[in-house]
Amino acid sequence: MNHQPRSQPNSQRLSGEEVSKHDNGDSCWVIIHGRAYDVTDFLPEHPGGSKIILKYAGKDATETYEPIHPPDTLDKYLDKSKHLGEVDMSTVKKEQEEEDPDEEARQERIKTKPILEQCYNLMDFESVARKVMKKTAWAYYSSGADDEITMRENHSAYHKIWFRPRVLEDVSKIDFSTSMLGTKVDIPFYITATALGKLGHPEGEVVLTRAARKHNVIQMIPTLASCSFDELCDAREGDQVQWLQLYVNSKRDITKKIVQHAEKRGCKGLFITVDAPQLGRREKDMRSKFSDVGSNVQSSGGDQVDRSQGAARAISSFIDPALSWKDIPWFQSITKMPIILKGVQRVEDVIRAIESGVQGVVLSNHGGRQLDFARSGIEVLSEVMPVLRERGWEDRIEIYVDGGIRRATDIIKALCLGAKGVGIGRPFLFAMSAYGLPGVDRAMQLLKDEMEMNMRLIGCSSVSQLNPTLVDSRALNVHNTTVPGDTLGLSVYDPLASPAWKAKANL
Amino acid sequence: MNHQPRSQPNSQRLSGEEVSKHDNGDSCWVIIHGRAYDVTDFLPEHPGGSKIILKYAGKDATETYEPIHPPDTLDKYLDKSKHLGEVDMSTVKKEQEEEDPDEEARQERIKTKPILEQCYNLMDFESVARKVMKKTAWAYYSSGADDEITMRENHSAYHKIWFRPRVLEDVSKIDFSTSMLGTKVDIPFYITATALGKLGHPEGEVVLTRAARKHNVIQMIPTLASCSFDELCDAREGDQVQWLQLYVNSKRDITKKIVQHAEKRGCKGLFITVDAPQLGRREKDMRSKFSDVGSNVQSSGGDQVDRSQGAARAISSFIDPALSWKDIPWFQSITKMPIILKGVQRVEDVIRAIESGVQGVVLSNHGGRQLDFARSGIEVLSEVMPVLRERGWEDRIEIYVDGGIRRATDIIKALCLGAKGVGIGRPFLFAMSAYGLPGVDRAMQLLKDEMEMNMRLIGCSSVSQLNPTLVDSRALNVHNTTVPGDTLGLSVYDPLASPAWKAKANL
Amino acid sequence: MNHQPRSQPNSQRLSGEEVSKHDNGDSCWVIIHGRAYDVTDFLPEHPGGSKIILKYAGKDATETYEPIHPPDTLDKYLDKSKHLGEVDMSTVKKEQEEEDPDEEARQERIKTKPILEQCYNLMDFESVARKVMKKTAWAYYSSGADDEITMRENHSAYHKIWFRPRVLEDVSKIDFSTSMLGTKVDIPFYITATALGKLGHPEGEVVLTRAARKHNVIQMIPTLASCSFDELCDAREGDQVQWLQLYVNSKRDITKKIVQHAEKRGCKGLFITVDAPQLGRREKDMRSKFSDVGSNVQSSGGDQVDRSQGAARAISSFIDPALSWKDIPWFQSITKMPIILKGVQRVEDVIRAIESGVQGVVLSNHGGRQLDFARSGIEVLSEVMPVLRERGWEDRIEIYVDGGIRRATDIIKALCLGAKGVGIGRPFLFAMSAYGLPGVDRAMQLLKDEMEMNMRLIGCSSVSQLNPTLVDSRALNVHNTTVPGDTLGLSVYDPLASPAWKAKANL
Amino acid sequence: MNHQPRSQPNSQRLSGEEVSKHDNGDSCWVIIHGRAYDVTDFLPEHPGGSKIILKYAGKDATETYEPIHPPDTLDKYLDKSKHLGEVDMSTVKKEQEEEDPDEEARQERIKTKPILEQCYNLMDFESVARKVMKKTAWAYYSSGADDEITMRENHSAYHKIWFRPRVLEDVSKIDFSTSMLGTKVDIPFYITATALGKLGHPEGEVVLTRAARKHNVIQMIPTLASCSFDELCDAREGDQVQWLQLYVNSKRDITKKIVQHAEKRGCKGLFITVDAPQLGRREKDMRSKFSDVGSNVQSSGGDQVDRSQGAARAISSFIDPALSWKDIPWFQSITKMPIILKGVQRVEDVIRAIESGVQGVVLSNHGGRQLDFARSGIEVLSEVMPVLRERGWEDRIEIYVDGGIRRATDIIKALCLGAKGVGIGRPFLFAMSAYGLPGVDRAMQLLKDEMEMNMRLIGCSSVSQLNPTLVDSRALNVHNTTVPGDTLGLSVYDPLASPAWKAKANL
Repeated sequence: MNHQPRSQPNSQRLSGEEVSKHDNGDSCWVIIHGRAYDVTDFLPEHPGGSKIILKYAGKDATETYEPIHPPDTLDKYLDKSKHLGEVDMSTVKKEQEEEDPDEEARQERIKTKPILEQCYNLMDFESVARKVMKKTAWAYYSSGADDEITMRENHSAYHKIWFRPRVLEDVSKIDFSTSMLGTKVDIPFYITATALGKLGHPEGEVVLTRAARKHNVIQMIPTLASCSFDELCDAREGDQVQWLQLYVNSKRDITKKIVQHAEKRGCKGLFITVDAPQLGRREKDMRSKFSDVGSNVQSSGGDQVDRSQGAARAISSFIDPALSWKDIPWFQSITKMPIILKGVQRVEDVIRAIESGVQGVVLSNHGGRQLDFARSGIEVLSEVMPVLRERGWEDRIEIYVDGGIRRATDIIKALCLGAKGVGIGRPFLFAMSAYGLPGVDRAMQLLKDEMEMNMRLIGCSSVSQLNPTLVDSRALNVHNTTVPGDTLGLSVYDPLASPAWKAKANL
Repeated sequence: MNHQPRSQPNSQRLSGEEVSKHDNGDSCWVIIHGRAYDVTDFLPEHPGGSKIILKYAGKDATETYEPIHPPDTLDKYLDKSKHLGEVDMSTVKKEQEEEDPDEEARQERIKTKPILEQCYNLMDFESVARKVMKKTAWAYYSSGADDEITMRENHSAYHKIWFRPRVLEDVSKIDFSTSMLGTKVDIPFYITATALGKLGHPEGEVVLTRAARKHNVIQMIPTLASCSFDELCDAREGDQVQWLQLYVNSKRDITKKIVQHAEKRGCKGLFITVDAPQLGRREKDMRSKFSDVGSNVQSSGGDQVDRSQGAARAISSFIDPALSWKDIPWFQSITKMPIILKGVQRVEDVIRAIESGVQGVVLSNHGGRQLDFARSGIEVLSEVMPVLRERGWEDRIEIYVDGGIRRATDIIKALCLGAKGVGIGRPFLFAMSAYGLPGVDRAMQLLKDEMEMNMRLIGCSSVSQLNPTLVDSRALNVHNTTVPGDTLGLSVYDPLASPAWKAKANL
Repeated sequence: MNHQPRSQPNSQRLSGEEVSKHDNGDSCWVIIHGRAYDVTDFLPEHPGGSKIILKYAGKDATETYEPIHPPDTLDKYLDKSKHLGEVDMSTVKKEQEEEDPDEEARQERIKTKPILEQCYNLMDFESVARKVMKKTAWAYYSSGADDEITMRENHSAYHKIWFRPRVLEDVSKIDFSTSMLGTKVDIPFYITATALGKLGHPEGEVVLTRAARKHNVIQMIPTLASCSFDELCDAREGDQVQWLQLYVNSKRDITKKIVQHAEKRGCKGLFITVDAPQLGRREKDMRSKFSDVGSNVQSSGGDQVDRSQGAARAISSFIDPALSWKDIPWFQSITKMPIILKGVQRVEDVIRAIESGVQGVVLSNHGGRQLDFARSGIEVLSEVMPVLRERGWEDRIEIYVDGGIRRATDIIKALCLGAKGVGIGRPFLFAMSAYGLPGVDRAMQLLKDEMEMNMRLIGCSSVSQLNPTLVDSRALNVHNTTVPGDTLGLSVYDPLASPAWKAKANL
Repeated sequence: MNHQPRSQPNSQRLSGEEVSKHDNGDSCWVIIHGRAYDVTDFLPEHPGGSKIILKYAGKDATETYEPIHPPDTLDKYLDKSKHLGEVDMSTVKKEQEEEDPDEEARQERIKTKPILEQCYNLMDFESVARKVMKKTAWAYYSSGADDEITMRENHSAYHKIWFRPRVLEDVSKIDFSTSMLGTKVDIPFYITATALGKLGHPEGEVVLTRAARKHNVIQMIPTLASCSFDELCDAREGDQVQWLQLYVNSKRDITKKIVQHAEKRGCKGLFITVDAPQLGRREKDMRSKFSDVGSNVQSSGGDQVDRSQGAARAISSFIDPALSWKDIPWFQSITKMPIILKGVQRVEDVIRAIESGVQGVVLSNHGGRQLDFARSGIEVLSEVMPVLRERGWEDRIEIYVDGGIRRATDIIKALCLGAKGVGIGRPFLFAMSAYGLPGVDRAMQLLKDEMEMNMRLIGCSSVSQLNPTLVDSRALNVHNTTVPGDTLGLSVYDPLASPAWKAKANL
């Protein structure tokens, strides 16, 4: 494990007793991976608020710290003088684990979870993950912005697109491979960037790296991964291709360092996130903290404003809200990687992207985690392509779509409407959280099985044959609700019933 | 407390025993705030019917009287000769409180209500208020006309509007302040007029006055407030701005007095309600009385017609149904305050309002409390603005919208479509009912947090940048219902299931 | 009671013992209203099948017979030679009433039914009726054709029509009276014809006659009333107006007799039903018989075909399916009453009706009891009127609509779209079944209260002001269903929750 | 029974003990219908995977084998040298039936199932079948592709079509007979091909043959019937007509043999399935196997890939995915039967079919069992007919529709829109599974009853009068979903309630 400190003589090690004296806001030490740190001065700066740190003042904080901080966090953000060195862990008093009936129930569920072979589609992994994940981890992965309307619309939008399949085409050989930014892939999806992989699996995003290799698809490395960027590069095998997803730091020198390091490490695409000048309010995530702290919590007197707004806010304070079109030339000047704008949401901005000379756009609303009532990527695609085709610009840029893809039919629909490929995120996180690498492996295989079947059934033997005449997407831009229910009228209606069964002969 | 009578010598006070003799329709006295009143002759005139008064004949009626009558009611409507003076309250027999299991359950709920910090959006306050408010108070606040279709449509309509956000705009600084009728406000909403604030909180609408001050928004003072108009003016601080909402009295001299008094006290806008020539039938409100009177109630022989149709009807009999366009010049003649017509519901009437020279309109259906199947204000707005723009009239009037606003995204949508600002009513009543001033404060702060976030995410740094190209509102005028359910077909369908979990090994 | 036979000397009366010997298909006597009848030869002709008669062979059948046969049935259909005369009822053995837990529960419900004043709208009566009516009676009244889609669409269609109300009109005086076929009525509805009133109330349709008088509306007398035509005419008071609904008998001389008798008795309109060449299959009605006969019933060997298809079929075998446009002149030749075609369902047939010279049409689908997926009358109206207006024909005929009217707003919508008035049927049956005449009275009064309120709120003081610009009915011809549910996707979605409440301190 | 082997002397028979030695993958014998077979070499070739066979190694496999293999399977696919001859069944050890609580519950349900006369429509049979069928059989019949969206859309689509009935037409005589490919039939439906009839009834598809005869409709013989083709031909009576449904075998000589044999046996139509180059993934079917094998199953080490993907995949590996338009002339060269393409799904392919000279098409999506989000046949019909009519081609081909037909109104809608007739499959399977031949008989009779009634009500006395003006099908191509639910908003809404009932006086 790269987290283990090099061993020191016992005499130099701090004792648990010593550490435990620094258990308050005036002097706050915490133990992480067997080393002590003085975080007293850092308390007010902590993006997640001071309260969560003070909970562990004088104690071992590793378990909570681990999944939401990349391994190089302490080196980056805490002055070396505050690194107090190794602790003799044998002298650290074990916390009496509080009995947690929720956690006990979860452990029970883990024991009885369905076997992997019972998962037949991507939703199945989510159904398992929901029950075996820790509540806070589930809340972070599964939550969306505000009322989660857009998050749900993302998949729902695909249900508005129906097929016009061809019959009597020779579909004995099906080839659904394609290329993305010049890389040949086996199936037209990539693993899109998602944060905090260790919430779902102790090894984090390297699990996805391995699955991507096995199925020959591209992994997009997230800025907010639990694993460090280099760990994820190191996990690559052979000619495997990775891309970098970038949240642009207000300090551009940091950004420059990240981008150029990525290029040096072999990344083949730079996906700049443009839909997140500030990370979203996700109430399910925010609300999840209350289950931790129980019913007697009152805001601490010292914390004027309630800053602990869930994991999303805590990890993203560095993102630059001033990022604008004017910055694009600078990015083009610092890297030769193709640049793709991730999170474009209307045709006017696709046109501007083309005019800016970038190589691609991802039509995306950030998985419904940013602006509620943003339209689905697939709907934006159906707005974009006719305009580009009218200008003859449809080949000047690669267009990707993400959000809500759960079935191979969703992928096929996106390609019919003009996408080069699609990004899939949460489903693989859930497969990983529920079953680790075998889960992700099976999830990808299921998509391939579905892909083969459905390419056949739509009458196409290669992705180049997919085109708009194969779908009817006229309902895609309809966002209506129905008239509110006729409560009284419906409640007095006596519904029709199926035939009644006989009473049992003897009771 | 301004309700406490000046003290009188004991010898002059009435005894409880004396009062209790007048306990019937032939001689009916009641005690309110420690003073006795002879209401025998007033019985047939009481807008709420005589039955409710007779229930308290010879007794202390303060608790029931208080929230639904402004403090100056008795002075206004009961001749001074009927004011019998102070009662020696120590001699008044305490009513044996009937045991009320519903009330006990409510008291239990109040003890376990969520802490304020758990409320993350405006709906959360409503969820708490619903359980901690008295049933009749909840019924009055929450009810709408007929089948409450319009009431629900009001928020639902916003769900038909979707965003077309811009990306890569510099949104580091967000300014969502604006001005309304010349007053600078911090965020584009005002507190709209709602009646009977003391049903929700013992202090009534002054709570809202204080919150409005803190967040620098305008409060519209309701004609039917529980607090008196002057109490609400007195609660103002500094340069705080208030408007007056007016139900026009059949007796125009009373109306004139009210308007001119308001102007003198500094009100900066006169909002004349035009959608309520008669106050609505709200069946939830009407029905709530039956839970009070139990199952053995029969209509009293004396009351030919059942007049007790809920609180709404009881308090509004003075409103003039003859009010018409012809009256507008008269209003313009008696006040210099800007005049705004509240409750306009179609483009033809907006045009007429402009031609009449008023300063604004509120596109509103009275919170769904008047005409069921009236369209939402936001839908009317989408009908109005294109017509005004075609005539070049869009700047000749300020247009407001109220009804159904629950999220900052709703505010942004209204501004994109052309509104100057929006009115918010019930949500603040619920926040007040659940948590008092801190509740309203937090509700407003949450709206500001959402506002900042969502202005960023739509790519606009000021309200002046909001415009129609940022939304897709094509579904707004669609009012369809789906084909009635296929009861038998759906009941025989065997729904797909997620993977089954293993049985527990040993039970 | 008009059913009581004139008394005979005991010596001439039949004894119960004598009657009880004729208890089978070879000799089948039944007692009705104290008189015996030999129905042996009639068994195969009984429209409701022989089985139901044989159940009462040798016994008193009055209770079952009464509500579904008009009083003159036996005189009309059974030869006088089979009328066996009075029975000494003291000698008739009382049937040991089977214990029927359903009936006991119903009697309990009757004792605890809500008081009349708790009914605030027409749906409320239905909610009470559903629980206090006999199951078979409820099934007959409440059932519709096939999947009852049209039956529910009838009211649902009104939910697709939204108002565009005018404001600032003088609505101090509201007059919603109108005239129908020359008769002045207080409110624009009439009581439409519905069959078998005694299923709901022992006195039958005369209850409706009395309510119609009180509220000055017109009653349409049904061919299939439980009361005889003359009883209903006799119940008329003063200048009260009635119409006749006619199912045309295959034997035209019978039809002629009925029509001319009605005219002589003063009926002011002849409504010929044209949507029921055969009475509908109503499965709820058909199914209700099985609750009667229990779980051990097998079809009787003698009855080849199962004929007992509910009450509707049983009573309607005489209706002529050959009735056609060619018959209209004949009707015009035998009566001077205005002729109205009831059940017209498309604009082509309205035009044909005008060309045929009839005085009116009722756009109706028979309350959803005939053809499932027939459109609502109000939708047909919205198809008809623009075509008539284009031809300048809108005043050549009176157009009525029935089906699904439950609110005064429904009436107003129909009048805005061009109807002269609306027919209301089931709601009054339910009010009558639940509360008798006071129920129907209150139901009508509630409609008048709603009417006054809503006329005010739409800004119209008389029905002549109602016009198409006051409504938005664009959604009326939309009959879409939504895409079938995403079962798996929805089941894995973790819905947002309101704040959690604290656990109780001590349990 | 044709499965019984000719008797052999005891001495030549194998003993159960002998067979039971061959109970593993190295030597695997099974007993079927009293004869032993050595299937060791066949294990890897078994389309359903080896695991299911090994479960019965050394044992009697008849019960599981029977319903999913036609009787000639062993002769066709297992070399004669592996047919080991008769077994002395008295020496075969009876398996101790495992107690199966699900099966016990099912047996209980069978005892209390509703009597046949309680079934009033096609859905009723399905409601009974669902509860009396074995779970795996139900899963096979009832399942659809992926999310079963198309499967449900098939019936739902009919709900988007509404009638515009004519009135006052003489409908005393109704004739709804028609002809299909030259054969006169009593009602415009045929029994379409469905696989594995013995899963539902021990006699299999011959039950349907008999019902088809009784009601004079055509049966389409399925390639994947449980009964052999010849058994089904033999079951024909008189001039009864059958058609052949064909899955085209990769080995064209086999296909040729089948087609020419069918023509020789008198089949009057060749329906080539074109929507199933590969049989669908039906997850409900796939998932059903896990209920069999319990919770401890792990994939066997030897089986690399999990091949047991439900019954559908197991039985269809021979189908040729290379089948294309180029093969049509070959079919035309080997048979004189009319050729109909079953599973055409867009107008372009209907035109191509006409140009190819075939006699008909079935607009079908295979009952929603192949491509999810394929449109319903009835929707495709509404796309096809206007195009054909524009070209004057509407009479050059017979067009059929299948999928989702449950009511006579559905049949009438299809004929109004231009279909020659409709295919009905599952409903008859369910009627057969629930009640055998009497069930299918009643199901057909119910359709005829509905047909007569609804022809009358639409005002048509023969199918030739049915035409597009009688329906409004504008909503048919609308595939919208509603905006995802407003979870919080809906949860705080306090729904209107009907009047409350009194508490009981004494409890």
